[in-house]
Amino acid sequence: MRGLIVGRFQPFHLGHLSAVKEILQQCDQVVIAIGSAQYSHTKENPFTASERYEMIHRTCEYEGISDRALIVPVTDINQNALWVAHVRATVPEFRVIYTNNPLTMRLFGEAGYEVRQTRMYSRERYCGSLIREQMINGGHWEQNVPEVVVERIREIRGVERIRAIFNLSKDISQ
Amino acid sequence: MRGLIVGRFQPFHLGHLSAVKEILQQCDQVVIAIGSAQYSHTKENPFTASERYEMIHRTCEYEGISDRALIVPVTDINQNALWVAHVRATVPEFRVIYTNNPLTMRLFGEAGYEVRQTRMYSRERYCGSLIREQMINGGHWEQNVPEVVVERIREIRGVERIRAIFNLSKDISQ
Amino acid sequence: MRGLIVGRFQPFHLGHLSAVKEILQQCDQVVIAIGSAQYSHTKENPFTASERYEMIHRTCEYEGISDRALIVPVTDINQNALWVAHVRATVPEFRVIYTNNPLTMRLFGEAGYEVRQTRMYSRERYCGSLIREQMINGGHWEQNVPEVVVERIREIRGVERIRAIFNLSKDISQ
Amino acid sequence: MRGLIVGRFQPFHLGHLSAVKEILQQCDQVVIAIGSAQYSHTKENPFTASERYEMIHRTCEYEGISDRALIVPVTDINQNALWVAHVRATVPEFRVIYTNNPLTMRLFGEAGYEVRQTRMYSRERYCGSLIREQMINGGHWEQNVPEVVVERIREIRGVERIRAIFNLSKDISQ
Amino acid sequence: MRGLIVGRFQPFHLGHLSAVKEILQQCDQVVIAIGSAQYSHTKENPFTASERYEMIHRTCEYEGISDRALIVPVTDINQNALWVAHVRATVPEFRVIYTNNPLTMRLFGEAGYEVRQTRMYSRERYCGSLIREQMINGGHWEQNVPEVVVERIREIRGVERIRAIFNLSKDISQ
Amino acid sequence: MRGLIVGRFQPFHLGHLSAVKEILQQCDQVVIAIGSAQYSHTKENPFTASERYEMIHRTCEYEGISDRALIVPVTDINQNALWVAHVRATVPEFRVIYTNNPLTMRLFGEAGYEVRQTRMYSRERYCGSLIREQMINGGHWEQNVPEVVVERIREIRGVERIRAIFNLSKDISQ
Repeated sequence: MRGLIVGRFQPFHLGHLSAVKEILQQCDQVVIAIGSAQYSHTKENPFTASERYEMIHRTCEYEGISDRALIVPVTDINQNALWVAHVRATVPEFRVIYTNNPLTMRLFGEAGYEVRQTRMYSRERYCGSLIREQMINGGHWEQNVPEVVVERIREIRGVERIRAIFNLSKDISQ
Repeated sequence: MRGLIVGRFQPFHLGHLSAVKEILQQCDQVVIAIGSAQYSHTKENPFTASERYEMIHRTCEYEGISDRALIVPVTDINQNALWVAHVRATVPEFRVIYTNNPLTMRLFGEAGYEVRQTRMYSRERYCGSLIREQMINGGHWEQNVPEVVVERIREIRGVERIRAIFNLSKDISQ
Repeated sequence: MRGLIVGRFQPFHLGHLSAVKEILQQCDQVVIAIGSAQYSHTKENPFTASERYEMIHRTCEYEGISDRALIVPVTDINQNALWVAHVRATVPEFRVIYTNNPLTMRLFGEAGYEVRQTRMYSRERYCGSLIREQMINGGHWEQNVPEVVVERIREIRGVERIRAIFNLSKDISQ
Repeated sequence: MRGLIVGRFQPFHLGHLSAVKEILQQCDQVVIAIGSAQYSHTKENPFTASERYEMIHRTCEYEGISDRALIVPVTDINQNALWVAHVRATVPEFRVIYTNNPLTMRLFGEAGYEVRQTRMYSRERYCGSLIREQMINGGHWEQNVPEVVVERIREIRGVERIRAIFNLSKDISQ
Repeated sequence: MRGLIVGRFQPFHLGHLSAVKEILQQCDQVVIAIGSAQYSHTKENPFTASERYEMIHRTCEYEGISDRALIVPVTDINQNALWVAHVRATVPEFRVIYTNNPLTMRLFGEAGYEVRQTRMYSRERYCGSLIREQMINGGHWEQNVPEVVVERIREIRGVERIRAIFNLSKDISQ
Repeated sequence: MRGLIVGRFQPFHLGHLSAVKEILQQCDQVVIAIGSAQYSHTKENPFTASERYEMIHRTCEYEGISDRALIVPVTDINQNALWVAHVRATVPEFRVIYTNNPLTMRLFGEAGYEVRQTRMYSRERYCGSLIREQMINGGHWEQNVPEVVVERIREIRGVERIRAIFNLSKDISQ
């Protein structure tokens, strides 16, 4: 049996990893759908799908679960009524979807899927927007993401990119 | 002669109904264009075009005006300069447009259409965003929409959907 | 109960009208979805959704069935896997789909809809592409479409438009 | 007064140049709209908008008419009913459109523009698709385009590109 | 050598003109890319690409630099990772990009382009969003844009348009 | 080092498998990009990205190479000039691209990538369009695809789907 988890993974953090491991206790394989795949270089979506794929792939290899994790970028189509059909046509077959997002719960629920929630591993710490803020403010973001992700973010100079984007947003628009 | 009214109808409320009746006093038929047709399951646009069509159709049947009302979903194209051409290519021919929206007035006015305003029937009460808030907060939204619309929203469990979406928006983003 | 029929209606001809009447013998109402709604001024799709809506609406009025016919333009999204979800989100609720098109049969069948075929009323005569050719070659196309559609096509000088487009296609491309 | 000419200019050839000069005999300035701007590297559209802009700009400089020629790339939107509005919103104001294309004549004519035809300077010779074929087959394409365009096509190794694309099209698809 | 400057030019103001002149001290020609070309009639983007092209073109003619300025509308594609490739495929070849925008600096820098900053000519005065506010509030916006731009904005009744859009935004949404 | 192979994999056949194995003799890992990911249920693209992902994943598991194969659906963007940037932003980092397609060779070559060709394993037999024809005509298509792919195609009744689509294409269009 396969379970699906959908996220933006900006970046992939320890909360995401916990959820993946939790799913693998209940399912043979996990499909990890990288949402909003076409976006990058924005405050909400700093990393490309390529970079996020790499972060997740390396983490799965490091954790020894790469043969049970199927990673798939999924573009946003901005039409919620088509979202479930779009995900189904893109990622390999799955039976359960794991999510704590009320809209996703609703959309997949209405489509007849079994929806399960994942436990919340200190959501205050493991939260994408907080981690991105820590990157901007010089906080200890490294504590909240897997080591191989820290490494990858350094290779692509991700913190500098987020700061450049953040300055942009504060800036008076032309 | 046909008059056009464009709205998002999220949901179709008594103010909309008043405007439709007012137009039918001046025109033989009314074209009701459901704008932002492709959106749904968001705070601003909770209902699908399908659901909004049904609300309007049932109301028109109930009011005995369905043979004079032509309902047409129109997708947003997000390019204002093409908007009038897009509406014209989608909905059946019309001669006057009724609107209180300054941008719509301007776009159709510049294109040479006769633009008329509708009277404002207690805009404080009959207002989509207020009705959506009443749905979230447990207010008496039912007073502000036609009975058959209340019925339809119950059938599709619309209030629950809006609350799910509202919780989502308040939520800390991943 | 409502039945759905999907077509491009380029133009709406007597075969389409027969199918609509057949559906109304089995259903209370018919939803007439105008497919490929965004296209016009091409050899395959000469008329706008607006013009096709008008043809169908006038025919339904003339036939006295306009209160039982719900006409809805539906844009192409060019992703077959999302097609059923897209139609469902756009047109008012329906229970059966009537079609003789193998792909449509398959897509709606896979989605769990009841699919019925309509009888074939002299398909050699009532066929959109043949009628368009008759328009180009000066054939008796008027015999194959409802009278009010003939009238409408004359009003918009539709035959001239098709000939202009046909010349274009034969032309050596720039 | 400004005249508009729309073309794909794949590549910009001597027939195009003649038309531009003819327009400048009747108008103060010519707006040269590069259509299908987003396409490149296909059999019908081998060159990018950037490359086509360069070809036209260099030719106008060489001919001493660059101060009277306004070059503007225009993307295809694939909805003919919106085409005129799209062109109008993109290129600087113009009063007459020059074209020999029946569809363009019709669309701008319906929109109320004055449409003029340009004389046909040996259309057998100055024709984009023939010139592209000459490039593939080793014919004397250089005779049919301005010298500075020949030069530019050599710089970007355009003939090799067209041949690569042509081989592709002949190839058995995967 | 050519330098590229990208802006939305809503409207083209004296700060933009200074930057263009500065670039022309360093380069033979300047490519002026009009970004967000498809948008208009919004608070952030009131003017069409057509209108902005005209403002810039007239200013360049007035300043006697029109033979050294290549104006090109560029649509937004809303995918930052493709932005540089998109600009390159649309505008004529350039070697240096001039920008003070941190994201643009980063994207073009990563792609290997030489990025230069322009001096900031009283950014408090020459700033698109402030000028648009002055238009709304009856401030002296005319001091901050070239005279021919003032003239053009009057011709198209641009101030009235911005006010109509501004009223819309303040308005309670339907 | 990683090598990239791009294909539509309609379906994934023994020629594709040979190419993948060949790449794995030269590289540590292979990135398998499923092109035209958004299309399905057409003659050229019968299977969804989901189904193609499954075919490839099962084959890699069967062959014991799933830990070295990174499968990624990539949507078509229909703008060749942006194609390389789009692939780079979607799939995990790679150093060499393997292809026999002249256009792909050209686009990646121009972008500075090392391009290698794969040996042609009886291209007459292992060819997507021939295999699809065999499915339609009752030929021995099973010989040309991996066993687990045969199995998968049977599970989803793929041959029947292709026949339905083929009948459609032969059919007189409405």
